[in-house]
Amino acid sequence: MSRIDALRETLEEPLLVTNLVNIRYLCGFDSSNAALLVEQDRVRLYTDFRYIDAAREVAGVEAVQTRRALVAELAETLTGRIGFETVLPYAQYETLRSGGIDLVARSGIVEKLRAVKDAGELEALRRACAVTDRAFERLLDVPFVGRRERDVAWDLVQIFHEEGAEAVWPEFIVGSGPTGSQPHGRAGDRKIGKGELVVVDAGCSVGGYTSDYTRTFATGPLDGRMRDAYEVVALAQDAALGGIRAGVSGVEADALARGIVDAGDFPGAMGHGLGHGLGLDVHEDPRLSTESKDILVAGNVVTVEPGVYLAGEFGVRIEDDVVVTADGIENLTGFRKDLVEVG
Amino acid sequence: MSRIDALRETLEEPLLVTNLVNIRYLCGFDSSNAALLVEQDRVRLYTDFRYIDAAREVAGVEAVQTRRALVAELAETLTGRIGFETVLPYAQYETLRSGGIDLVARSGIVEKLRAVKDAGELEALRRACAVTDRAFERLLDVPFVGRRERDVAWDLVQIFHEEGAEAVWPEFIVGSGPTGSQPHGRAGDRKIGKGELVVVDAGCSVGGYTSDYTRTFATGPLDGRMRDAYEVVALAQDAALGGIRAGVSGVEADALARGIVDAGDFPGAMGHGLGHGLGLDVHEDPRLSTESKDILVAGNVVTVEPGVYLAGEFGVRIEDDVVVTADGIENLTGFRKDLVEVG
Repeated sequence: MSRIDALRETLEEPLLVTNLVNIRYLCGFDSSNAALLVEQDRVRLYTDFRYIDAAREVAGVEAVQTRRALVAELAETLTGRIGFETVLPYAQYETLRSGGIDLVARSGIVEKLRAVKDAGELEALRRACAVTDRAFERLLDVPFVGRRERDVAWDLVQIFHEEGAEAVWPEFIVGSGPTGSQPHGRAGDRKIGKGELVVVDAGCSVGGYTSDYTRTFATGPLDGRMRDAYEVVALAQDAALGGIRAGVSGVEADALARGIVDAGDFPGAMGHGLGHGLGLDVHEDPRLSTESKDILVAGNVVTVEPGVYLAGEFGVRIEDDVVVTADGIENLTGFRKDLVEVG
Repeated sequence: MSRIDALRETLEEPLLVTNLVNIRYLCGFDSSNAALLVEQDRVRLYTDFRYIDAAREVAGVEAVQTRRALVAELAETLTGRIGFETVLPYAQYETLRSGGIDLVARSGIVEKLRAVKDAGELEALRRACAVTDRAFERLLDVPFVGRRERDVAWDLVQIFHEEGAEAVWPEFIVGSGPTGSQPHGRAGDRKIGKGELVVVDAGCSVGGYTSDYTRTFATGPLDGRMRDAYEVVALAQDAALGGIRAGVSGVEADALARGIVDAGDFPGAMGHGLGHGLGLDVHEDPRLSTESKDILVAGNVVTVEPGVYLAGEFGVRIEDDVVVTADGIENLTGFRKDLVEVG
């Protein structure tokens, strides 16, 4: 069954898909300005001059050229009862509404389909992870001490490219010492010192699907507090990897790891959720966190990334990418996760 | 006057700023999850655990830690009449509204401030353009013929890095032959041939501000139709550069170039607007196009990028970045724009 047919089975009225990643998922069309109107008997793909040639090559859809202000044109031409994705900016919602369309707010419909990966998607993710395994392996040969975080990040970009990544994230995290205690600290101008923890969070895409790995490296011998933090994060990740399977909720998965962090020497130090879905986007459904409303199903691909963050001191995070199965997980991440010393 | 003070002068009620680039512009805080509530007597910066340490370092704001579902928490805590930015996703609008806030839709308020650059912003843009000048100059030494578009794009990424770019776009356009006829064709696996036109559209950021250049190169001698297309685009750009100044409308600026293209051998072949504002975002206000509602003012920074696109054949685009002044422009782009042959 095609993805558009799968979507149709869930629809109570035609759906106007405006999320560009959802459009790419449904019909393979990749642009910066498009809308897809999915009805039971037809599918129309709207885009402007810049992309219309590519739109005409998409199988199974009618390509319709619009002016650049696409939503304004849809407001003038569409009628009747139409569902819209609630990720739509309010201004565009107002434009559509003012045109007289009977709009129905629909949330997360395509995202729910995207959360369960098919064989082709899993293959792309496996390839992205294989590239990332090799890139992290080669990163061990890169000098850290005395160089800036941003220089190490750039080395990793080049390695990814050499290993066959089709694209890398716009920015990697390389957080040394206190930078690492900010979970999303950028790779900056700080010179990496000896005896520090360095959080490296990076990923690449193959066939449009992205990996998302984190490892925390040691630059020489660490003090006991750093080693303890690493150990508790590793234990927390083991517990989560051992407990995740279809039927477990996002809250339960998060608690598997958080319980171990909170019972150790650093209670409250895991300042973010355990993980998130991974696919065409780096962050997608389902969510593994204290706020999650999701229940895991087979075919979900999620990150498992507990961490400990001690403000002004250091951070530790260990992150794998896994496929959820009926009775456990398939871990797509092959790279080692013992505490590795880099130079 | 601070940017937040300038914003205050335009406000009829407190404004909840949720566009992350607008937040960065107003107070320098850069994150993936934040909101800024600007009132006449106080400013609150909301963000979650991951960024709260950085938020506390921002001068002139009260940092408030929220849970990850930031807007849901705001809906529980805020009351009274509050403006919101209409770029807000509809779902978040609904969450805020259901909390009982008296919401007022406000469109483009911060964007209007951002469209007029101050001295520091112009300096960052000048530096980004200087790096881009050097990068394009060095690109002339890169072999094109026989290599894939994506290989040339990767060469340019590396050159940008060596020349001091702090970041480059996630993806550059290298459109050879027919790929170039799609204005936003990606750098793909096509091998670049001899005697072709190759559109290269790329940019980098310095201090957060981005350049945006396009040049179209020849790989060996071209046929007359290609040379004619290049010439008409160059003439169209000259006309636009000569006519743009404060007081000219976005529609008029666009017409300066479009009139020349449409009067030549390729009527209707300029399939997009003349240009767009440039700053923290690659595409911002004002817009130069047939659909624009903007009037240019001194301090705007815009791209001037006419093009000719012949489906299945080739494309030509020439793009400079310019500052609008009272009586004309300051062109930030130094790189040559005669028709250059590359190897």
